[in-house]
Amino acid sequence: MFTQLERDKNTNARNGIMHLPHGDVLTPAFMPVGTNGAVKALHHKSLKEMGYDLILGNTYHLYLRPGLDVIRNAGSLHDFTTWDKNILTDSGGFQVFSLSEFRKISEEGVKFRSHIDGSYHMFTPENVIEKQEVFRSDILMMLDVCTPPGIGEREAREALDITTRWAKRGTKRWHERIDGYDGKLFAIVQGNFYKELRKRSALELLELDTPGIAIGGLSVGETPAEFHEYLSYTAEFLPLEKPKYVMGIGTPDYILSAVENGIDIFDCVYPTRIARNGTAFTRDGLIMLKNAKHELSLLPLDPECNCPVCKKYTRSYIRHLVKAKEILAPMLVTEHNLYFLANMMEEIRESIKVGNFYLYKQNFLKRYKGL
Amino acid sequence: MFTQLERDKNTNARNGIMHLPHGDVLTPAFMPVGTNGAVKALHHKSLKEMGYDLILGNTYHLYLRPGLDVIRNAGSLHDFTTWDKNILTDSGGFQVFSLSEFRKISEEGVKFRSHIDGSYHMFTPENVIEKQEVFRSDILMMLDVCTPPGIGEREAREALDITTRWAKRGTKRWHERIDGYDGKLFAIVQGNFYKELRKRSALELLELDTPGIAIGGLSVGETPAEFHEYLSYTAEFLPLEKPKYVMGIGTPDYILSAVENGIDIFDCVYPTRIARNGTAFTRDGLIMLKNAKHELSLLPLDPECNCPVCKKYTRSYIRHLVKAKEILAPMLVTEHNLYFLANMMEEIRESIKVGNFYLYKQNFLKRYKGL
Ligand SMILES: [Zn+2]
Ligand SMILES: [Zn+2]
Repeated sequence: MFTQLERDKNTNARNGIMHLPHGDVLTPAFMPVGTNGAVKALHHKSLKEMGYDLILGNTYHLYLRPGLDVIRNAGSLHDFTTWDKNILTDSGGFQVFSLSEFRKISEEGVKFRSHIDGSYHMFTPENVIEKQEVFRSDILMMLDVCTPPGIGEREAREALDITTRWAKRGTKRWHERIDGYDGKLFAIVQGNFYKELRKRSALELLELDTPGIAIGGLSVGETPAEFHEYLSYTAEFLPLEKPKYVMGIGTPDYILSAVENGIDIFDCVYPTRIARNGTAFTRDGLIMLKNAKHELSLLPLDPECNCPVCKKYTRSYIRHLVKAKEILAPMLVTEHNLYFLANMMEEIRESIKVGNFYLYKQNFLKRYKGL
Repeated sequence: MFTQLERDKNTNARNGIMHLPHGDVLTPAFMPVGTNGAVKALHHKSLKEMGYDLILGNTYHLYLRPGLDVIRNAGSLHDFTTWDKNILTDSGGFQVFSLSEFRKISEEGVKFRSHIDGSYHMFTPENVIEKQEVFRSDILMMLDVCTPPGIGEREAREALDITTRWAKRGTKRWHERIDGYDGKLFAIVQGNFYKELRKRSALELLELDTPGIAIGGLSVGETPAEFHEYLSYTAEFLPLEKPKYVMGIGTPDYILSAVENGIDIFDCVYPTRIARNGTAFTRDGLIMLKNAKHELSLLPLDPECNCPVCKKYTRSYIRHLVKAKEILAPMLVTEHNLYFLANMMEEIRESIKVGNFYLYKQNFLKRYKGL
């Protein structure tokens, strides 16, 4: 399912193609998040025009609302939403651990209460695969146990051991799929911030030979140095032939760091969330439109951006929309931010192709951070 | 500025063309409301694709935020917003009377406190013209005194007398415009629900010979029968050569009634406001997407609608977006509702052209009301 293309000489950065049921995806790729089956404040059409061909949906949210019956009734998550490119769905585990009022892990799975109506539900390694099969997800994620940074080695090891046993059950269930549907399963490396556990998790999961591998439990509040260290350490154990995914990566500096470590895909709500708060990416760093200095600015959000928003609107107008809480404000800033990242990913792939990724990264960060 | 085209034989309905600085507008026309210089939840581009070439902006809101300096800095309201078709701005009077915490009418004008920050401001017949000149509005509205239904004849007469004196001052100020800007001023007939006062107001204002005339003080909570009666009564005094405008008309039945009485343009927040609540126009009446019966419906919002939303999305998906409070929900339903009205206006103009408006109206209402 994965073809590696050019590989950078100085770093682990690489270009590739993921072959998925709804078309090929050039990597490294950023995936916009469509929690409820829609990227917030953006038309599907705009996403496509930017070149995105893989977005993320959240199993926890979609399972609770609208529910599997509604999606099955439409055919698939693609049919339901009309998004006809690829969809990666997570396992729902992360939301169970971060949103739910109550949760109880057992060998069988994790029981939790809905944050919407308080009803009880059970996610098991098998039934999260089944849910994602109802979606017809192009990439399915394994149920894992997420642990916060700062826990002891023993607790981290126990969580990891359950994660591995769940991964075996999930893989078995995934192999039983029928009727020609060919979604790709990714297992998730855990191990908290313990290198021995990270290594053990990676090696145990590789035995399952899932089409792809994710590195979980990063970007959860640790320092950038820790992020870089544990990402780099974990990635070293993962073979070149498998696509690698890191969750929760959506700032230019973390994206560059992930790419440098050979990561192929990543996602984050950050670019769309800050957009709804009136914050835009520019090549010279973030701008906050609420800031008074933009009141009379007739510049576009980013003078070097070629997106439909920057070709048409001024900071002055968009700032006004933000302050007046007009819905057009998140619509415009979201479109720009995702265009900015799509364009950045294109530049990254081009730099890897021509062999100057490291230089690209240095130059980008120098300007982005105003150094 | 106005060319009358076909006139209906059985009613006062008529087709026409308003010649405005930013292009001709076919009438009868519905004007979407862009309070803050943006129609809520909709791209300018979508509005244009639907054929709208005249939208409304609110002087009260735009004057308070972003303020005249910000708009002047961009050039005009068109330049500021990038909407390059026509804009009608109201005088701000209605908002002063409905939104402001405090207001005091004097001969000079109306003093009020901003609903945003409590600051004091004064609107005079002259300075509301000046504000709209800063916007470069294609149609400017006169400052008037709005009165609620149910007040006594004497109070209504006093309000009317001030309105007439203000109209004289506003017209004088408008004639002093310079530098080639050619916005068209509309005076507003008042008189509450007193026929003698309505007649007097109409005749007094006609002496000022403004390019257009509006009928104010209707659609303010009176019964449909009263609306129809006073609209019809007032419209009779207005000459054929002037375009006629009624504020606050945005439901299919009121639109048909206004057209029947020879009204050329109207506006209302209704179609966009109900959209944000998940309510959509259909040829068979309104549908409320929150209603459980749409949960599994794979129909479009209106099976006979050709809008981009109906060509692509199901009620089931849009209902889910509404329930999940996704921004895409108001985006999609607003687009459909305004397309529905644009299409209805086109059908109305066509029916007037071929001489069967009354039949069109009867058939439309029969189906819309499920009779
Ligand atoms: Zn841009
Ligand atoms: Zn439609």
